[in-house]
Amino acid sequence: MTNNDTEKEQLSQIRDEIDAIDSEIQALISRRAECAQKVADIKTQGGKVEAVFYRPEREAQVLRAVKERNKSLISGDDMARLFREIMSVCLALEQPIKVAYLGPEGSYSHASVLKQFGSSVHPYAVSSIEEVFQSVEKNEANYGLVPVENSSEGIVKQTQNELISTPLKISGEVSLVIHHCLLSQADHIDDIKKVVAHPQALGQCENWLKNNMPTVQIEAVESNALAAQMAQKDASLGAIASEQAAQLYELKTLETHIEDRKDNTTKFWVLGSEETEPSGDDKTAMVIAMPNKAGALLSVLSSFAERDISMTRIISLPSSETKWDYLFFIDVIGHQKDEGLMAAIKEVQQKTSFFKLLGSFPVSPLS
Amino acid sequence: MTNNDTEKEQLSQIRDEIDAIDSEIQALISRRAECAQKVADIKTQGGKVEAVFYRPEREAQVLRAVKERNKSLISGDDMARLFREIMSVCLALEQPIKVAYLGPEGSYSHASVLKQFGSSVHPYAVSSIEEVFQSVEKNEANYGLVPVENSSEGIVKQTQNELISTPLKISGEVSLVIHHCLLSQADHIDDIKKVVAHPQALGQCENWLKNNMPTVQIEAVESNALAAQMAQKDASLGAIASEQAAQLYELKTLETHIEDRKDNTTKFWVLGSEETEPSGDDKTAMVIAMPNKAGALLSVLSSFAERDISMTRIISLPSSETKWDYLFFIDVIGHQKDEGLMAAIKEVQQKTSFFKLLGSFPVSPLS
Repeated sequence: MTNNDTEKEQLSQIRDEIDAIDSEIQALISRRAECAQKVADIKTQGGKVEAVFYRPEREAQVLRAVKERNKSLISGDDMARLFREIMSVCLALEQPIKVAYLGPEGSYSHASVLKQFGSSVHPYAVSSIEEVFQSVEKNEANYGLVPVENSSEGIVKQTQNELISTPLKISGEVSLVIHHCLLSQADHIDDIKKVVAHPQALGQCENWLKNNMPTVQIEAVESNALAAQMAQKDASLGAIASEQAAQLYELKTLETHIEDRKDNTTKFWVLGSEETEPSGDDKTAMVIAMPNKAGALLSVLSSFAERDISMTRIISLPSSETKWDYLFFIDVIGHQKDEGLMAAIKEVQQKTSFFKLLGSFPVSPLS
Repeated sequence: MTNNDTEKEQLSQIRDEIDAIDSEIQALISRRAECAQKVADIKTQGGKVEAVFYRPEREAQVLRAVKERNKSLISGDDMARLFREIMSVCLALEQPIKVAYLGPEGSYSHASVLKQFGSSVHPYAVSSIEEVFQSVEKNEANYGLVPVENSSEGIVKQTQNELISTPLKISGEVSLVIHHCLLSQADHIDDIKKVVAHPQALGQCENWLKNNMPTVQIEAVESNALAAQMAQKDASLGAIASEQAAQLYELKTLETHIEDRKDNTTKFWVLGSEETEPSGDDKTAMVIAMPNKAGALLSVLSSFAERDISMTRIISLPSSETKWDYLFFIDVIGHQKDEGLMAAIKEVQQKTSFFKLLGSFPVSPLS
């Protein structure tokens, strides 16, 4: 046999092995789907129609288990993504999940819906954050997904405002890494005389610009979208924006991933009508206001600290009503059903003039 | 035990079963990844660097086998999609695949890249069809994906023109179903006085419009994108366009899937530098020109018909060069290595003044 023949034979053997593995995987996925069907049957037995099929805490537990036991050549994140898809297909057999999201800015929100629910979800685009809340409140959608915070633009105020009054509960969190690209009409970096972008984006790409375009002029503009629009009209300009903006504004993507730090993320929350049960690794979000008195915030924070409850975020927002000067959005580690957190919450309620629990939800297993 | 307790216990048992199944699936996916790694090792043994890892014919065979043996609650298409993802992750371990596609029109081309190569592909947006060809020809991308034909707008001439001279081969086909939506600034269908869209789109939604908006005025405009722009400026207008256009133009999606026929598709071809081997169910595409003589085309077609070779498409395109009046793009069933087709091709070459084989490639197993 020639070398070529040996290679062919080796490949053919491995392919047979792969085919056998695929058969087994397929049989197991089928069995998993049957189990999902049984779950649906049990939940609807006796004619119950209000059964809840999507359990965020259960999904988080499954994905965490996948990552924990992973010893594959495939990364834990990729493996979790595959199981995210398998679960999504199985869940769709029980009940198709419709998730409302903010349409205009488009693909980041859309991508986050797919990341959280898998490809078998029904994404439902609406045109404002208010409408995302409304469509879940009116049962037009099972869940809603809203942007909460964004490394480049900070807090999304509309979301925070809606959270103050909504009857909905936060049932999950999703983070999406946002990559910056250098976009232009020009064919080459060398043809670019000036780079335009939002100041935050310029800051995030500072080192890259210094190293790769040391002599270029730099100008801050209102938004990256505006920068892309400017670059569309002037081939001597380069804009820093998303890959999606390249498509929207018909620009060439000269470089991708030019951000200095790779943790440029946007954070989203999933909103639903139901409380989420503990998953073993959860966060709890709340919004509070305090009587206008020195040390009030400190006293609240100590209720958590004394019980070793970590705070992951505290955001102050000037209140639009006159009743309070400031509202504080606080996220802590733990579930509201945990004993310690339950006690802390009780105490904080006494210390505040306004207190609203926004929900307990699993820490996202998907990075 | 109460009913509720029984239900809880039943659910807990099934969840344990699902967890056990997941463990097995994960172990098998890991084994599959190891096999993929072995394939890569064999292909690169002896220091070969030009090894080809992506085999379109092999991928098509695997997906067809998945669909054929599928007896699951999960549909064959969904099951194939899951395996598409598993293969994509495994392939990325051997070699990350970079696929150039036409950026501006955005998400349909992008969605097709993901549909064909799975989520672990590196999509690479460029700004013209010409550039898609160039980036593969220059080895900046492993493959390119170009639109070929579109139910609403017909043949994509730029693609056909590039195909005449490119050294690249067609290595695959992808079809994407395009859904029409009714978009507007208005909140309700009843508030819409006039519906605007491209004539093709109006035709495709004719019955829906008659049944659901019998008294509405209808106006044809140049493109669906223009219709969406008009609707953005006038809340009494409804536009027929894609869900993506709703995001782009900040319109509300009042209805989805309003097309009368559900086969409104856009067809794409994948271009690569290599010939694709037979997969068992293939198509072959070619472009020909004939001496200006009566019966020339008929004679060519009979070379195929006599051998029972089915033609799936024939498109005539006025030539941009003066040498020929018309070029014909012909797709037939079969692989160029099939005996019958090989003989037919030999014969056709004698009868034509210009003949170019564009490639043989698997009939797409993904609907």
